[in-house]
Amino acid sequence: MSKSPTPTFDATADLLSEALARNRLPDVVQALSALNVTQTVEQLERLTTIGRALAYRTLSKGRAIEVFERLDARLQADLVVGLQDAEVADIFAALSPDDRVGLMDELPALLANRLILGLTEKERALTSTVLGYPQGAVGRYMSPEFITTHPQLTASQTLARVRAGIDDAESIYTIPVTDDGRHLRGVVSLREVLRAEESELVANLAHEPLAVPATQNVEDAARYCADAKILVLPIVDAENRLVGILTVDDALRILEDAESEDAARAGGSEPLRRPYLSTPVRSIVRARVVWLLVLAVGATLTVQVMGVFEATLAEQVVLSLFIPLLIGTGGNTGNQAATTITRALALGDVRPRDAVKVFAREVQVGILLGLLLGTLGFVVASVIFTLPLGLVIGLTLLGVCTMAASVGGLMPLLGKALKVDPAVFSNPFISTFVDATGLIIYFLVAAAVLGI
Amino acid sequence: MSKSPTPTFDATADLLSEALARNRLPDVVQALSALNVTQTVEQLERLTTIGRALAYRTLSKGRAIEVFERLDARLQADLVVGLQDAEVADIFAALSPDDRVGLMDELPALLANRLILGLTEKERALTSTVLGYPQGAVGRYMSPEFITTHPQLTASQTLARVRAGIDDAESIYTIPVTDDGRHLRGVVSLREVLRAEESELVANLAHEPLAVPATQNVEDAARYCADAKILVLPIVDAENRLVGILTVDDALRILEDAESEDAARAGGSEPLRRPYLSTPVRSIVRARVVWLLVLAVGATLTVQVMGVFEATLAEQVVLSLFIPLLIGTGGNTGNQAATTITRALALGDVRPRDAVKVFAREVQVGILLGLLLGTLGFVVASVIFTLPLGLVIGLTLLGVCTMAASVGGLMPLLGKALKVDPAVFSNPFISTFVDATGLIIYFLVAAAVLGI
Repeated sequence: MSKSPTPTFDATADLLSEALARNRLPDVVQALSALNVTQTVEQLERLTTIGRALAYRTLSKGRAIEVFERLDARLQADLVVGLQDAEVADIFAALSPDDRVGLMDELPALLANRLILGLTEKERALTSTVLGYPQGAVGRYMSPEFITTHPQLTASQTLARVRAGIDDAESIYTIPVTDDGRHLRGVVSLREVLRAEESELVANLAHEPLAVPATQNVEDAARYCADAKILVLPIVDAENRLVGILTVDDALRILEDAESEDAARAGGSEPLRRPYLSTPVRSIVRARVVWLLVLAVGATLTVQVMGVFEATLAEQVVLSLFIPLLIGTGGNTGNQAATTITRALALGDVRPRDAVKVFAREVQVGILLGLLLGTLGFVVASVIFTLPLGLVIGLTLLGVCTMAASVGGLMPLLGKALKVDPAVFSNPFISTFVDATGLIIYFLVAAAVLGI
Repeated sequence: MSKSPTPTFDATADLLSEALARNRLPDVVQALSALNVTQTVEQLERLTTIGRALAYRTLSKGRAIEVFERLDARLQADLVVGLQDAEVADIFAALSPDDRVGLMDELPALLANRLILGLTEKERALTSTVLGYPQGAVGRYMSPEFITTHPQLTASQTLARVRAGIDDAESIYTIPVTDDGRHLRGVVSLREVLRAEESELVANLAHEPLAVPATQNVEDAARYCADAKILVLPIVDAENRLVGILTVDDALRILEDAESEDAARAGGSEPLRRPYLSTPVRSIVRARVVWLLVLAVGATLTVQVMGVFEATLAEQVVLSLFIPLLIGTGGNTGNQAATTITRALALGDVRPRDAVKVFAREVQVGILLGLLLGTLGFVVASVIFTLPLGLVIGLTLLGVCTMAASVGGLMPLLGKALKVDPAVFSNPFISTFVDATGLIIYFLVAAAVLGI
């Protein structure tokens, strides 16, 4: 085990970083020698770019390629820069076409082109198929190497095909069934092939395929593969011809990246796209500063709102005491709603056309939450301060919660409808908007109740 | 396709909800008839509890069980309550032991016990194995039905075993190798078995197994399965005896639930554990109200801080104008850091013992962000207001950003070290804490610079 139960993970990490700090490569070799591929990848992901390149070069050739395949494309690109041309060409040839394209996207165009010229004609053709699809389309993440069978073949003929193609195919456990024109006609699992009589025709074993077009958004396709609980998702062109397959392990990695992106955006930053400890500080700053500036500029709206009501504040300084609490509560309520809806959108539980339903629910939720918090705020503020002030706080909480929940619920849907990542209308964005609106509600309620 | 490209999804959804509203079951049957299992599940997830029970009962028996298996355990439990005893017993018997236990956890104990008594002895024994592990342990999510092979068997004997056990086993694509005492000695993939000479011994084909103990946390085990890119993770007891397997599709669902939980907590609420549209409003309120109250109580700290500095505020009302902007920026910076670290923890990129490294990085990030925003704030506030006020704003932004980034980065690690879900120290929690601390920084800076 590695994730937490291994007693040696920490020891290995310490050994490695010390050996690298002292530039003692034999100790690096020793620290890595006891690890399996997964553990090696985990250790490499924690190192700096230079440390990783050093440690990587101590691996045996076979292990090096296995480890390379499992690294993120960004880290692969970092490594490639530090290796010799011949080594890079070997690794590049050993990668599967989809991984190769993933790496090319991270490399300087010149280097990528030189590498592709070094491939065999067959590998170059396979890579071109994948490269032909736009970024973000599932075609760019699919494997163009697969085994197919035909409706008129038997189970034993299919098994023979599997055995013949076993070295190249990305997966052999789900076999697409295609006709003479390469059109996808069904799928049959290896389990069904093994269970069937040897002479049984594939036509009788195959079932209706779940497939997606190669131009489909990759995240939707991966989610579809995961939801359908299938090991292999066939990818077809516009004429329903089979062009590739997406395997569940690739789907998993795609979803993991998508979720990292959603999580980062929900926290108001861009995703790092590398493991945290291996990301330079300046890259972290870059991932955060743009959103932070945008939000700060947005927040100047609150300064303006406050400016409008400066006279009220001067007259009743006590009002200012509650400002952080009131806008904080609004922000929290908005965040809760936005998070729920963003996640529901990602899972496909909610679609933009459900906006009316979502709005109706969030208004109800907001009113209920506002009544609860408002009553509490009214009682506490009345007792500690004055009855009118209690009334102002209670009514403001009711208004702010209702407004925040409905705005927070609708924003992600708006984003999706506008074809922007719904997480871009992220929690901090909603907080900033809700802050300004909440202040207006507060001062209007105060003016009405206190007569100022 | 189903997630977005299907032109009939919306039409079907409309048809279904109308047919259910008018209680026209023949129309329900028709609306569902054209759908595959995945599409049926998606439609059912959007209905109310009653509508779903009605629609579900129109499915054919075989389809009904397939659909049932794919629903969340919560929704399964809702359905069970509305079905007749005989139907429930049939479904319960058809479920795999791990799914059965998942459903039992959601059912009233009496009903769960009655159902388990209705099982065959073999099924009851399998279910007991899974039930024997505590909630949250991978043993409770594993499948106890698997095929094994032995080091002294040949490839063709292994294939014969696979064929013999093909109907019961959860997966046949990765075959654990066990010795006479059921100890796990290795794994061999079906691919390797098919590729090998018929007479080749398993001992020569098998490779070192990646396995986890049954008591292991289920989320860590699922992440491990996903990271290692394996289809089947063997689960062993304390003596390294094979007790079950976790398949990648189960791992995927476990990770999806874990990510929904993290996303909800990051937004300051509890996860809904059902699809959004099928969750009653009162359940949504319940998922949110506790955290909202906790945070509101926490936010009274800000009222107290403001109270301490009330005299300063009365003297310089202009200071209050910047309060929402300053604490908002602090909250955003804290959120960014907390989100990054929470995700890195979930992915295993960072561990609690990395606290010093994380702190050092986040302080640097905070200072850099603070210098940028502070300079901007200084310039703008100096021009629009006064030079001293500009200085106050600039210095406060520097202080707040540094404090917020380091607190935001450390909190999730603290949570993990205390064995609390790191997401519980969630973004709103950090915002509230950072709000109060930010106000103190602001007023202290103001007092020093303005001499009040």
